[in-house]
Amino acid sequence: MPAKTAKKATKKTAAPKKAPVKKAAVKAAPKAPAAKKPYTFEKSKELFLRAAKVIPGAIYGHQSPVLTVPGSFPYYAAKAEGPYYWDVDGNKFIDYMCGYGPMITGYNNPVVDAAARAEQANGDCYNHPTGRMVELAEFLTDLIPFADWAVFAKNGSDVTTWATLVAREATGRKKIVMCKGEYHGAHAWCTPGHGGLIDEDRAQMLYYKWNDLAGLRALFDRYPDQIAGVIMTPFHHPTFADLELPAPGFWQGVQKLCNDKGAVLILDDVRCGFRLSVKGSQDYFGFEPDISCYCKAIANGYVLSAAVGRDSLKNAASSVFLTGSYWNGAVPMAAALANIKLLQKENGVAHMFKMGELLMNGLIERGKAFGYEMIASGPTTIPFIHFGNETNFMRMQTWCAELTVRGHFCHPSHNWFISAAHQPEDIAATLDAAEEAFKVVKKEYGD
Amino acid sequence: MPAKTAKKATKKTAAPKKAPVKKAAVKAAPKAPAAKKPYTFEKSKELFLRAAKVIPGAIYGHQSPVLTVPGSFPYYAAKAEGPYYWDVDGNKFIDYMCGYGPMITGYNNPVVDAAARAEQANGDCYNHPTGRMVELAEFLTDLIPFADWAVFAKNGSDVTTWATLVAREATGRKKIVMCKGEYHGAHAWCTPGHGGLIDEDRAQMLYYKWNDLAGLRALFDRYPDQIAGVIMTPFHHPTFADLELPAPGFWQGVQKLCNDKGAVLILDDVRCGFRLSVKGSQDYFGFEPDISCYCKAIANGYVLSAAVGRDSLKNAASSVFLTGSYWNGAVPMAAALANIKLLQKENGVAHMFKMGELLMNGLIERGKAFGYEMIASGPTTIPFIHFGNETNFMRMQTWCAELTVRGHFCHPSHNWFISAAHQPEDIAATLDAAEEAFKVVKKEYGD
Repeated sequence: MPAKTAKKATKKTAAPKKAPVKKAAVKAAPKAPAAKKPYTFEKSKELFLRAAKVIPGAIYGHQSPVLTVPGSFPYYAAKAEGPYYWDVDGNKFIDYMCGYGPMITGYNNPVVDAAARAEQANGDCYNHPTGRMVELAEFLTDLIPFADWAVFAKNGSDVTTWATLVAREATGRKKIVMCKGEYHGAHAWCTPGHGGLIDEDRAQMLYYKWNDLAGLRALFDRYPDQIAGVIMTPFHHPTFADLELPAPGFWQGVQKLCNDKGAVLILDDVRCGFRLSVKGSQDYFGFEPDISCYCKAIANGYVLSAAVGRDSLKNAASSVFLTGSYWNGAVPMAAALANIKLLQKENGVAHMFKMGELLMNGLIERGKAFGYEMIASGPTTIPFIHFGNETNFMRMQTWCAELTVRGHFCHPSHNWFISAAHQPEDIAATLDAAEEAFKVVKKEYGD
Repeated sequence: MPAKTAKKATKKTAAPKKAPVKKAAVKAAPKAPAAKKPYTFEKSKELFLRAAKVIPGAIYGHQSPVLTVPGSFPYYAAKAEGPYYWDVDGNKFIDYMCGYGPMITGYNNPVVDAAARAEQANGDCYNHPTGRMVELAEFLTDLIPFADWAVFAKNGSDVTTWATLVAREATGRKKIVMCKGEYHGAHAWCTPGHGGLIDEDRAQMLYYKWNDLAGLRALFDRYPDQIAGVIMTPFHHPTFADLELPAPGFWQGVQKLCNDKGAVLILDDVRCGFRLSVKGSQDYFGFEPDISCYCKAIANGYVLSAAVGRDSLKNAASSVFLTGSYWNGAVPMAAALANIKLLQKENGVAHMFKMGELLMNGLIERGKAFGYEMIASGPTTIPFIHFGNETNFMRMQTWCAELTVRGHFCHPSHNWFISAAHQPEDIAATLDAAEEAFKVVKKEYGD
């Protein structure tokens, strides 16, 4: 990946302007870190080789270790607690990926788990919903200012895809607009994969560039009365690139445009939900969508997704068939209620921002001592950091590997996640380890 | 629904020939049962009215009570144990829907729940899979004769849809064939709903009629080298109609046709899996698909689905992106291992067949005493029963309502499910209650 120079992200900041990109020759695959490794991953490797025989790709999807450094990353987890987890080799990690987002109040949070256990003692999956479904719908519609109704499912994709159908049903139009390079799930209309797709899957999709309000408006002009909905994440979070925050006025412009043109504005808050504001990311950025989709952090890892929406779409929402074998299960709903209330009570989002700032500012500062300009982008609760003016992505891979073998799990090409369980002493320990990692990459790759 | 006369189903039997269908005028909505009701549903009603304010449709999808009789069915569950559950009004039911399939070894099965609890004490949703994923993939590929690999997800739809993409990837072809009226999930290519669909969703779908091998062959002739895959359930289980078993030689003919034409044969075993044979329904009917999809009963209600397939499709399977926020979660995989092993150890499938036969034969016999010819179709572990030569579907609704208000939960228009937890005394109690229900419908609707 060619390196980019990006602005350091601040809340509600302007869109980063791109510096000219220097193309760099791709070097050979990264060597395993040269430093003495405190951690080894023999049992992970053994399980991976067993898995390769009976699972296509051994570990598929977003948890695939294909982008990490062989021999320097764990492949299988064994247990977890608070901001820590242990892999199958017994190595302990401070976790900066949080299960790729679901963990938000700490692994095995005692309050959330107690609520789930109490519900599980009664049961989970019946012929009917339970009172938990009604309570959670009431709670979310109270919590989220624009929300008049809620539905529940199991995957982010379940609700993002369903929302596009609701937009079509509500408008009688076909076209859905999304941002180029955005992730909205693994269904054919939006998957980042290529396998098995046919032209029809995306025949009614339109694409615009993040922060390009004029470009979005041009699509509406080009396809008058044909655009059913616009689906967007709260900020642009591609893999392999800087995160881009909305330019000032961008979201408000998008909202007005959708309103004016009669299109449904769908917020995909699957990744960011509850990490920018407990009321949803539209609250943080100051706008209101028509439907918002949640998953990941909503129940601290219990299997739940949700969509909430405006009253004007309730009839359309009733008309789009929505179901799954376990969708009315009570346990994840009880967990979600406990989890969100705990975030509110302990002001978890503010704490995450503090921890994220400590981490990002600390990494930038420690990098400077080695002559590196580290670039942090995105909100600090969902940050991405990399080497500035980089011509060699292997440096970042090696740096993350050096952190990981020292017990600080991070990812070289995907945004990180901060949780409410991370504490200043965790961040301090990681900054010290980062210094060691900077030493190694300096020695191995130079400036 | 016009009534049909169908053959009583037997294992591996011939397809039922249709008797001429008498069209009947539709009467007014069924009255609430006239008999004194032992059960009332005030708290269910109260929750439903609360839900209607904040949830589109109040209860959506397959658990919608729209087809049941208001005032005579519970809408919300509170707890469960073995083959029983209690609703929010404190009413206890012997359950013949089993959560619409997921419950198979009994609600809150102590063995399955202990395995899940032990895993949950470590954690569930991490940055990586756990050893449970490898163990479960190894276990399923050992258990299911044709299976060389396994993948895991959260909904039946996740794996049925993914399987169609694998078929497209493997063959480079576009078209998917399915049976008219079959249920393969809630995604746009197959949902029974109409809301939000566009023509493109089904532009590459083809349809044939169950048991019509010649019709299926004609599709292959009409679209040479264009059919990527054929997706089928083990037997035809439409809603509102008799279940139809495969005609002798039908499955073997389908398998040969797919093999000859280079199309991928996908078995959707989501509803039937583990209720016909613990090795999958292809084992019961004597054929082998290329991919098989599981959900529902695989983990006794813990949130898991799976697909297994042949080695020849492993590369294609690796190429179709497959992921979800919670898909590598350890708890449902631990539950699945315990659940399937328990079914094996206690010969649960044979027990279910015995209980199902007791129930279906008993209902037919008790009906006769009232002059009713009850028609049972499908395997007795996933049976459907209704009044023969029926011109008035309300009789069936009222009969189920009368059973339900007496503590025997059943559905008037969807197949029922038997579990390994049902015992002869449960069936005996239900048969006695059915007699009472027959009395009521006889009085209310006559012959």
